[in-house]
Amino acid sequence: MNILFIGDIVGNPGREAIKVFLKPLIKEYGIDLTIANGENAAGGKGLTKEVAEELYDYGIEFITMGNHVWDQRSIMKFIDQEARLIRPANYPVGAPGKGYGYIRTKGKKIGILNLSGRVFLNNLEDPFSGAIRWINEMRQETPLIIVDFHAEATSEKVALGWFLDGKVSAVLGTHTHIQTADARLLHQGTAYITDVGMSGPRDSVLGVKKETIINRFLTQLPAKFELAAGPIQLNAVVIDVDESTGKARSIKAIQRVQE
Amino acid sequence: MNILFIGDIVGNPGREAIKVFLKPLIKEYGIDLTIANGENAAGGKGLTKEVAEELYDYGIEFITMGNHVWDQRSIMKFIDQEARLIRPANYPVGAPGKGYGYIRTKGKKIGILNLSGRVFLNNLEDPFSGAIRWINEMRQETPLIIVDFHAEATSEKVALGWFLDGKVSAVLGTHTHIQTADARLLHQGTAYITDVGMSGPRDSVLGVKKETIINRFLTQLPAKFELAAGPIQLNAVVIDVDESTGKARSIKAIQRVQE
Amino acid sequence: MNILFIGDIVGNPGREAIKVFLKPLIKEYGIDLTIANGENAAGGKGLTKEVAEELYDYGIEFITMGNHVWDQRSIMKFIDQEARLIRPANYPVGAPGKGYGYIRTKGKKIGILNLSGRVFLNNLEDPFSGAIRWINEMRQETPLIIVDFHAEATSEKVALGWFLDGKVSAVLGTHTHIQTADARLLHQGTAYITDVGMSGPRDSVLGVKKETIINRFLTQLPAKFELAAGPIQLNAVVIDVDESTGKARSIKAIQRVQE
Amino acid sequence: MNILFIGDIVGNPGREAIKVFLKPLIKEYGIDLTIANGENAAGGKGLTKEVAEELYDYGIEFITMGNHVWDQRSIMKFIDQEARLIRPANYPVGAPGKGYGYIRTKGKKIGILNLSGRVFLNNLEDPFSGAIRWINEMRQETPLIIVDFHAEATSEKVALGWFLDGKVSAVLGTHTHIQTADARLLHQGTAYITDVGMSGPRDSVLGVKKETIINRFLTQLPAKFELAAGPIQLNAVVIDVDESTGKARSIKAIQRVQE
Ligand SMILES: [Fe+2]
Ligand SMILES: [Fe+2]
Ligand SMILES: [Fe+2]
Ligand SMILES: [Fe+2]
Ligand SMILES: [Fe+2]
Ligand SMILES: [Fe+2]
Ligand SMILES: [Fe+2]
Ligand SMILES: [Fe+2]
Repeated sequence: MNILFIGDIVGNPGREAIKVFLKPLIKEYGIDLTIANGENAAGGKGLTKEVAEELYDYGIEFITMGNHVWDQRSIMKFIDQEARLIRPANYPVGAPGKGYGYIRTKGKKIGILNLSGRVFLNNLEDPFSGAIRWINEMRQETPLIIVDFHAEATSEKVALGWFLDGKVSAVLGTHTHIQTADARLLHQGTAYITDVGMSGPRDSVLGVKKETIINRFLTQLPAKFELAAGPIQLNAVVIDVDESTGKARSIKAIQRVQE
Repeated sequence: MNILFIGDIVGNPGREAIKVFLKPLIKEYGIDLTIANGENAAGGKGLTKEVAEELYDYGIEFITMGNHVWDQRSIMKFIDQEARLIRPANYPVGAPGKGYGYIRTKGKKIGILNLSGRVFLNNLEDPFSGAIRWINEMRQETPLIIVDFHAEATSEKVALGWFLDGKVSAVLGTHTHIQTADARLLHQGTAYITDVGMSGPRDSVLGVKKETIINRFLTQLPAKFELAAGPIQLNAVVIDVDESTGKARSIKAIQRVQE
Repeated sequence: MNILFIGDIVGNPGREAIKVFLKPLIKEYGIDLTIANGENAAGGKGLTKEVAEELYDYGIEFITMGNHVWDQRSIMKFIDQEARLIRPANYPVGAPGKGYGYIRTKGKKIGILNLSGRVFLNNLEDPFSGAIRWINEMRQETPLIIVDFHAEATSEKVALGWFLDGKVSAVLGTHTHIQTADARLLHQGTAYITDVGMSGPRDSVLGVKKETIINRFLTQLPAKFELAAGPIQLNAVVIDVDESTGKARSIKAIQRVQE
Repeated sequence: MNILFIGDIVGNPGREAIKVFLKPLIKEYGIDLTIANGENAAGGKGLTKEVAEELYDYGIEFITMGNHVWDQRSIMKFIDQEARLIRPANYPVGAPGKGYGYIRTKGKKIGILNLSGRVFLNNLEDPFSGAIRWINEMRQETPLIIVDFHAEATSEKVALGWFLDGKVSAVLGTHTHIQTADARLLHQGTAYITDVGMSGPRDSVLGVKKETIINRFLTQLPAKFELAAGPIQLNAVVIDVDESTGKARSIKAIQRVQE
């Protein structure tokens, strides 16, 4: 089974990238399931119902989130009704939404787990011990499990990859908006990449107009963020998962750019 | 002119990777100058005189550092005598060592500037305004300037790349120990990569035994760090720089592994 | 000369505390000059022209700021025209406003310097070396110098106190909104306190409704901040400064509450 | 019942302060139970068996810890055998030692709970929800409960105080080494102070030689920490607790200095 996982979609340019590149990619790689991180899909910050539906329309079948999950407060109203939308599982019990979900394709159930790192990020529950607990529950349902680990520090991401090696089909990092060059199969058959990257305006600072961010570093003054114009890119990985064992057969990093 | 820049060398396995891969790489790419980040070269933490000399022996011609620069206190004794060794320029005035230096090859002078990021890192002088000041001085000497930006946050690294675009030959990120997949030429001819990666034990967490780091995340207890065994890797970039203008013609990311 | 310095004024309840307590305090302690930290005076975040003028009307003669200085963007428009309003001096060169200023009372010129800490706060210029530079300039004008050090970490605040001991009349900490019990004269005659405290609603979390903040810690969800109701308090220090030498003769911490 | 709680004891000077001041204080205030934070008691970092026993000899009956708990690795060997020594309860399950304990005095059982903050500190379990869970267990045993909340940010400390108001006898902050001037009874009868302060060398930066820390801020270079000489101080609070209800009747902050 071929699963396409797309890195943080940033605003309108990011959604445009999905519109332009998704269908051809599905065809080219024989994709059976498409997952995307949507934490920046609404104007760069969070997700609205309209934006989620636009993404579903383009062919995204499941959406994961990250530290920007609550940036659009309206998500608190609809996230509990969405079967195809999850947020980091290690938010305190009682947070709106859920941390893992399932989707069916080709007669198989695939579990998707969203986790947030803690290093340089929010004070959430331990993603390491939490992962084991949640994965044990998920494995009652299916051995096909994809983990989106939304985290900043490479040490935390690499460590979680090794920690979950053999327990899930893939551990895919998100959040830094820069694709890493370390996609590989770990020893026990888990596909791993430290960061899938970003889908949005290429000539930018993580999606935002570069002049804005440079100026913020130079002046330490607050600035109104504006997404960058120019060429759009899609960053993703394709993972081939053995449907009976849940082990990954391969992982391939993908970058597309349209000038 | 072809310049090879090697990402953070971690301990003995990292030095072994230099020994094994450097000479063949120099030959394969017609390398004229070899620079490496050595902040973890001595047992994973800092640099000693012996280790520096071992690296010079293997063919490294210039060494940059990072936040681990002072981990081996002995460096404070010899760094001022070393023409081929620099540490982040944005340490306060009066810190041992210097933040930029020069080396000659093929009858040309190449300037190398080392900067540290501040986001999630130490409270140093602003690398953005500092860069402009130091680069203006360096450009009196040569238009061929390589910047090692040792930083954590992708936003800070990407922003500095764009900020220095057209002013230097290359902005090369280090520190995260994971190579990124974004090596490219920016608009004004500066070669850029968010992180060059690490030279050291591959099946590890940033060079350290993976069980140690996993355990630290699980228990939040201190642990004695031990470098990992197993296959060794080298991560680097090759930049082709126009010797008359200092503009980069190309940048290519390189990974080598020996099982 | 008796100088009254009032800790972070928080919103309308904080301004009310000024209105209620300031005049009686001036009388009781024979105050010659009144300075206040106003970084939270406008609704808990930043300062507007109207709010500044309200504070002047109540008898505040000079206003310092902190990390919330730019929360009300309108301040960027008027701060350059205000002689009695300063912001941390260690913002990058070119930031609106100025980092130190002077005011005359009883025929004497008093200098006021505002600094921000960096530990757990913004990436600004070094307050230690900056302090020496700015104080050297100020001492050309007057030996009477009051420093508002707006910082989080006690280590940074205490260290700056000792560092400036004998060079200024007082080093007064702000930002944590909790008055510390360590007001004293240091060895060389500088009055010192780690934090002057807050003027605003007493039964709150740093001025904000306690239920809001408790909930934020429990849920890690964003929340709309609302200032607390109930009793109001004023936190301040009175420093008696020798007008000819600039040395402090005494420092006394003050707390007033109105149920 | 009168309970004396002493703030972070720093090294030999701190232990000397206990030796000098404890007995007279016990007499003066009719103290029935003496608790101290000992996280810095061994040379400024952590606690050894010898140092713990020295403190018991001086009359300390119960010891709490903080983020420095593991600085002396030997504690991992003896902490499980110590009935009178606890470390923050919100370390992951499986950490050596325990997070709360009991001691008997005057025929009553007093429970002591140690918690660590997370803001600007370690990634531990949520102290807010954890507190409720642990306190519910402790209240099966006794309504007399003292909480040492070892934390950095005033917001987190004040919020926990309000959160536990009426559920415990006292919430006493430690860690910043500077006593705050906000000791009071909260609405439901819980005694509260943001920070009890430090017992150790007074003319220092949190116990350390002031020149060392000033230099570290100026140079950003590592430095060997050395405890300061000079006058010693003891910082503490006395809480009068109603033995039948567990409510506090009063809290009084105490400072003693010996030149
Ligand atoms: Fe993102
Ligand atoms: Fe994110
Ligand atoms: Fe490194
Ligand atoms: Fe580093
Ligand atoms: Fe404030
Ligand atoms: Fe502040
Ligand atoms: Fe401490
Ligand atoms: Fe501590």
